[in-house]
Amino acid sequence: MIDQALVHDFNQSRIQRHKKDFEFLADQLDQKGFDIEQIVQQLAEFAVAIPSWALGTGGTRFGRFPGGGEPRSIFEKMEDIAVVQSLVRSAPRVSLHIPWDEPDDPQALLDFALEMHLGFDAVNSNTFQDQANQSYSYKFGSLCHTDAAVRQQAIEHHLHVIEVGKQLGSNAITVWLADGSNFPGQLHLRKSFERTRDSLIDIYSRLPEDWRLFTEHKPYEPAFYSTVVQDWGSSLMLAQAMGERASCLVDLGHHLPNANIEQIVARLITAGKLGGFHFNDSKYGDDDLTTGSIHPYQLFLVFNELIDAQYDGGLTEAPAYMIDQSHNLKDPIEALLQSVMELQRACARALLVDRALLSGYQEENDVLMAEMTLKEAYETDVRPLVREVRMRKGGSTDPINTFRRSGYRKKVNQVRTASSSYVPPQSL
Amino acid sequence: MIDQALVHDFNQSRIQRHKKDFEFLADQLDQKGFDIEQIVQQLAEFAVAIPSWALGTGGTRFGRFPGGGEPRSIFEKMEDIAVVQSLVRSAPRVSLHIPWDEPDDPQALLDFALEMHLGFDAVNSNTFQDQANQSYSYKFGSLCHTDAAVRQQAIEHHLHVIEVGKQLGSNAITVWLADGSNFPGQLHLRKSFERTRDSLIDIYSRLPEDWRLFTEHKPYEPAFYSTVVQDWGSSLMLAQAMGERASCLVDLGHHLPNANIEQIVARLITAGKLGGFHFNDSKYGDDDLTTGSIHPYQLFLVFNELIDAQYDGGLTEAPAYMIDQSHNLKDPIEALLQSVMELQRACARALLVDRALLSGYQEENDVLMAEMTLKEAYETDVRPLVREVRMRKGGSTDPINTFRRSGYRKKVNQVRTASSSYVPPQSL
Amino acid sequence: MIDQALVHDFNQSRIQRHKKDFEFLADQLDQKGFDIEQIVQQLAEFAVAIPSWALGTGGTRFGRFPGGGEPRSIFEKMEDIAVVQSLVRSAPRVSLHIPWDEPDDPQALLDFALEMHLGFDAVNSNTFQDQANQSYSYKFGSLCHTDAAVRQQAIEHHLHVIEVGKQLGSNAITVWLADGSNFPGQLHLRKSFERTRDSLIDIYSRLPEDWRLFTEHKPYEPAFYSTVVQDWGSSLMLAQAMGERASCLVDLGHHLPNANIEQIVARLITAGKLGGFHFNDSKYGDDDLTTGSIHPYQLFLVFNELIDAQYDGGLTEAPAYMIDQSHNLKDPIEALLQSVMELQRACARALLVDRALLSGYQEENDVLMAEMTLKEAYETDVRPLVREVRMRKGGSTDPINTFRRSGYRKKVNQVRTASSSYVPPQSL
Amino acid sequence: MIDQALVHDFNQSRIQRHKKDFEFLADQLDQKGFDIEQIVQQLAEFAVAIPSWALGTGGTRFGRFPGGGEPRSIFEKMEDIAVVQSLVRSAPRVSLHIPWDEPDDPQALLDFALEMHLGFDAVNSNTFQDQANQSYSYKFGSLCHTDAAVRQQAIEHHLHVIEVGKQLGSNAITVWLADGSNFPGQLHLRKSFERTRDSLIDIYSRLPEDWRLFTEHKPYEPAFYSTVVQDWGSSLMLAQAMGERASCLVDLGHHLPNANIEQIVARLITAGKLGGFHFNDSKYGDDDLTTGSIHPYQLFLVFNELIDAQYDGGLTEAPAYMIDQSHNLKDPIEALLQSVMELQRACARALLVDRALLSGYQEENDVLMAEMTLKEAYETDVRPLVREVRMRKGGSTDPINTFRRSGYRKKVNQVRTASSSYVPPQSL
Repeated sequence: MIDQALVHDFNQSRIQRHKKDFEFLADQLDQKGFDIEQIVQQLAEFAVAIPSWALGTGGTRFGRFPGGGEPRSIFEKMEDIAVVQSLVRSAPRVSLHIPWDEPDDPQALLDFALEMHLGFDAVNSNTFQDQANQSYSYKFGSLCHTDAAVRQQAIEHHLHVIEVGKQLGSNAITVWLADGSNFPGQLHLRKSFERTRDSLIDIYSRLPEDWRLFTEHKPYEPAFYSTVVQDWGSSLMLAQAMGERASCLVDLGHHLPNANIEQIVARLITAGKLGGFHFNDSKYGDDDLTTGSIHPYQLFLVFNELIDAQYDGGLTEAPAYMIDQSHNLKDPIEALLQSVMELQRACARALLVDRALLSGYQEENDVLMAEMTLKEAYETDVRPLVREVRMRKGGSTDPINTFRRSGYRKKVNQVRTASSSYVPPQSL
Repeated sequence: MIDQALVHDFNQSRIQRHKKDFEFLADQLDQKGFDIEQIVQQLAEFAVAIPSWALGTGGTRFGRFPGGGEPRSIFEKMEDIAVVQSLVRSAPRVSLHIPWDEPDDPQALLDFALEMHLGFDAVNSNTFQDQANQSYSYKFGSLCHTDAAVRQQAIEHHLHVIEVGKQLGSNAITVWLADGSNFPGQLHLRKSFERTRDSLIDIYSRLPEDWRLFTEHKPYEPAFYSTVVQDWGSSLMLAQAMGERASCLVDLGHHLPNANIEQIVARLITAGKLGGFHFNDSKYGDDDLTTGSIHPYQLFLVFNELIDAQYDGGLTEAPAYMIDQSHNLKDPIEALLQSVMELQRACARALLVDRALLSGYQEENDVLMAEMTLKEAYETDVRPLVREVRMRKGGSTDPINTFRRSGYRKKVNQVRTASSSYVPPQSL
Repeated sequence: MIDQALVHDFNQSRIQRHKKDFEFLADQLDQKGFDIEQIVQQLAEFAVAIPSWALGTGGTRFGRFPGGGEPRSIFEKMEDIAVVQSLVRSAPRVSLHIPWDEPDDPQALLDFALEMHLGFDAVNSNTFQDQANQSYSYKFGSLCHTDAAVRQQAIEHHLHVIEVGKQLGSNAITVWLADGSNFPGQLHLRKSFERTRDSLIDIYSRLPEDWRLFTEHKPYEPAFYSTVVQDWGSSLMLAQAMGERASCLVDLGHHLPNANIEQIVARLITAGKLGGFHFNDSKYGDDDLTTGSIHPYQLFLVFNELIDAQYDGGLTEAPAYMIDQSHNLKDPIEALLQSVMELQRACARALLVDRALLSGYQEENDVLMAEMTLKEAYETDVRPLVREVRMRKGGSTDPINTFRRSGYRKKVNQVRTASSSYVPPQSL
Repeated sequence: MIDQALVHDFNQSRIQRHKKDFEFLADQLDQKGFDIEQIVQQLAEFAVAIPSWALGTGGTRFGRFPGGGEPRSIFEKMEDIAVVQSLVRSAPRVSLHIPWDEPDDPQALLDFALEMHLGFDAVNSNTFQDQANQSYSYKFGSLCHTDAAVRQQAIEHHLHVIEVGKQLGSNAITVWLADGSNFPGQLHLRKSFERTRDSLIDIYSRLPEDWRLFTEHKPYEPAFYSTVVQDWGSSLMLAQAMGERASCLVDLGHHLPNANIEQIVARLITAGKLGGFHFNDSKYGDDDLTTGSIHPYQLFLVFNELIDAQYDGGLTEAPAYMIDQSHNLKDPIEALLQSVMELQRACARALLVDRALLSGYQEENDVLMAEMTLKEAYETDVRPLVREVRMRKGGSTDPINTFRRSGYRKKVNQVRTASSSYVPPQSL
């Protein structure tokens, strides 16, 4: 964690400018009928989980360029996440990946997490790679496999992941399946889906009562002809087949070109099956870039759907939010700080949409004014608002600057000497 | 209709060559364990509907280049369709569009159809254009409109279309909605979908008992930001909300780039909601090109799913097939002949897939041999087979050649003198 | 034109708030080392042309929903453009389309333009439609046609367009060709390109000495298999074949999915061949939506390339800017006002990029800080800045609001009674 | 290599059927005016190189599932390629990757190649990964890097690759650069391109006189925001900047969605800069699937351009052909056999296009008949033709079947025991 005094001193060094900016914004919002204090409260509630695999330098199939100082264990990863959380104060939970970050001693990890002021969010399974001790290979699928023994192995893996999660206080599991095919003919498209559905129903039937299960779709990669859970339609069919506590998780990078993602979010809300998000950004495929780095307006429009549905009761349960990125070039901690800040800004802007006004324009089909109502919120410089929220919660008004000043990276670089041989798993 | 004698004489002029080809293929297939007579029987059952709007020269928003000889009435369109059917013998039904081709006297049209040996397939509604006598505009939507009066008008239009269809012997209606928005904010994404769903439920509740209703999705155009029924997921939600006799129609051109359409077909079969197809081909968007002209292998893969599901009982009811193309450059009749022939070939190839062999390779994950089993069927030159089927049913072994020799186009060009002022509606 | 007094009174009614906002921004920028007065000067120089065809309600191939009050002649279109210009003060020129808006009496049009304080920008040719008096059809191409007589007709049309332009004071022609094919085999891909190139060289050889010629690429529509000038690579080959005064025009909607447009801009600058822009926005294809309505960050990144190249001398001549949109749902005048405002904001933000700082980060590969330097400019609320620029030039601080108050639309609706039968041409 | 006797015996076991099929095809072609012997001659000249990295099991960033029996050295790779060549007889050359397959003793490798009846095609450089002994990292680029020292290192690597190639009898180098950026702002788009250009000019200036240099473009991956050589336009600018012996290489998987690749081939032929091909197939991105497995008709259309340009003299020098695939699920040798067979079929079909007929239809804009002329060739079952060509050259009529019977894979599996630890590099 970053020393509280350092954060405090940094904030103080900027406090005059910040106060001026915040007051100006408060005045602006007041004229539009918004109570900035209320917005601050709402924004303060936003929280996003950090996956345990995001702290190392990522790569592509063409290679990886290690950045130095990479965490060598789940404990070091927790330390890094605690740094993120101490600066942004909206990233209080860790999303664990099994087996990449499976703890030998779950209680020890839980104790360490408490010490770091961190909790555990949804756990993640992995049937897209073979592990050393595995009886069967997932080369040709896991929950969809033609061989019942392979499916059974994959089902048991999921039950094990849930078991680990229970010990750590998690209450949800995210299931992303790489199952699919590379060539026409390889898989029987219907049967493979139906086997997957039946396997998931089996897992669901043994889900603890207070747990949720999220199915995550993806159109392609690593399968390049067909993917069993290729889009939200298939994901919805699976969630409906399982039952009430199963719902769909939307990864912003898991869509065909030009997809209207905010509308998919809207459909899942209508279906009562929006379970969670994996945040990232992309220009081409599942690029796993920093959230908001390519399409910031789209990110705002997604939050606009979420806030709108909270506003009118369409969303009864908050979706599980997680950042899912591959940090190939940036310092992972810095990239996560930047991402949480982007999410805070997108959320802040969505909170500033005048919903009564918007609704009026929509009812009377005043297209231009309805659009301008969204733009009015989007054009607002919300940085003073998110700075204020972070500061009030004990975080930094400028997390990246504070992080660089802290010397944290240099310090761990010296300690984590074995890091050069560490190969972090890839982003999902 | 083309003179039977002309067709017969043409076929006779090629009969030696054809017999040789057909016998060679029969021998080839026999060695692979296929009985060509059985394939001929199955292929002979394939039939596809022709939409009433496909007989005129189509265009784009940039303009239209009339081709001459365009039919000026639904009767002349029926004459043209009868020409197609007399040559290919797999296009026995007309899919009528209301109001473009609404008959003043349905009985007279029915009589004429009988004379032409044609029947009527699914009828099509239109709420994407305003008609002269309309009370309300669909500029901002129809079944999704914020104003209940507009929705009611659109509902009544659908009931009227069904009424016309009943008089003509149709037993299904296809609902393609252009409803959507051009800009973020314009539509409330959830409410507009829910209004659409409720409007459809209203229509469905008044559907004749022996009728089916097909919902058709499309990602964009004419709406360029969001479309209410944008993909098969939304279409499925609507079909499920309506009930048993509602199902989904797949237009091959209504998908985002790179979509795996054959897998969508497979999903709808699993969901028990595959209702029908609109055939065409495209490279970029809803280009409405000749079926099989760009991605013939994909067309084969779609038929492979259909034949496979007939084979194993996954499809209990045959989907409604229709050609939906925009004939901007080709003679519409020639383009339709070509399209039916492409469909016959794709269907023939799918019938030649050795399903037991394929299934075995799939079970044991022999990826390459499973793929090659499909290619084995695809590489087969099935032209003698489809020629034989056409000939046996009284059609031509070479429909386009026969059509050109018939002088039909020249003849109608002389008669249909007012055609230059005729502006045919666009493809859906 | 909108009454100056009305504009002035409106501005005065908001002046207190505006002054406060502007001063706050000036202070903010001052702290970052920017002199707001200098930015105001630079921003004041930005100007964009309005095409004569943008003032009517547009449509798609599926239909058109007239909005009322549509201009019935080029004179009425000029009146509407004058309204736009009187409110935004950055749209001083009209881009004329021949033959859609060809004046019977060019001198009369020129006189009227002077009266309206408007000038003429690049003229536009049209060989994608057939005109009533034409000898040959462009159904199968114009400058690429296999028949030399058709090519000659198209060449002469371009020379005529230039002639009209000369009389109106234009000094550039934009050539967008729909030439292409719908099916493999239709066109010989190489020969059709080479014929196009030779036709263009012929036109260029007769271009007035002080004129420029812009070639515009587009991947598809209305041709759906191949387009002769399909991308910037083909466009560049053509511009290079013609000579120094030929260059490439980039329409933001004329790219394949996911294209990095700002990089294409950069390449054309390096090649010395960036000639101009057609501004609009799109989510799927050539949707011709309001500039900045879908991807505002991308619009900023395009301006970032332009401002950067002006800054370092990479761009010696300012590109020709034009708005090219299809106003299907919005009031065309309002949509144009909104678009100019979006462009002003994008330009303002690009002017606020700290280029020395950015360059430093780029040199040392500080990826995150380089990106944040762009975001620092993008996050700035530049609305007070663009309001100030408009106000100083005599325009409105809130053009849409002022326009609605002016009652202009209601007034012309009464006068332009024949408008319902007017079918405006489509957007390019 | 596969035992010649085995191949011969296999062929003999099928010879009756083959003779019948071949004679039937000869008769068919004869009726269309083709001399099958001439086609056999032309097809026999087709040859494609095998890259040294294609013999191991490939993977994605999500993992790799080793297949067993993977070659552990360049010598074992050559053995595998010799197997391919002994069965298909159109894969006589190896495309070497440096440093992955750099020989310690080039002369020894050359001797071994001669023994295997193999030669060396274009050599490939690698600046997308860091090697153990490298002074500078390519994390932020190679030939485009801001630091001249990094660029110099990358230039010297290319000169070294050429040096190795010279010793092995190669006469061309293919340059694929991963240089690019992941975020807006990271790279100066113009300067990075200009540095790349200057670096390439430097390399080119030291290219042996009888060598060629190919630049290869790719829109994205591993760079996910911008790639320096992103499309054929940039590639062409670079080839032109270098000089006569520099030209462009087209990888079928390196295009944005929906790109018309055959038209890009046509443009590069017109520009006199078509240098070579990397064959593979893909549905989504650079999926590196088996050639012809997804879009076989597109593969035919590409060959149609190539054969057409050979026919009319547009192509004076044969492009360099190479297969570039990632064999994640299939046995690499089997996948290569399949791929060469696909290429032979595509080439055979292109040779069967009646060019005089096609040209006539194109001249008179008979769209449908021009298209059908291509389809006439495409629909032909050319398998007897390619079997005959392979058999005459000493290969197998059914390479995969023969390979499976040979027991080669089982044999090397026993020998190559260390293979499980071998991680083959990824496809380019």
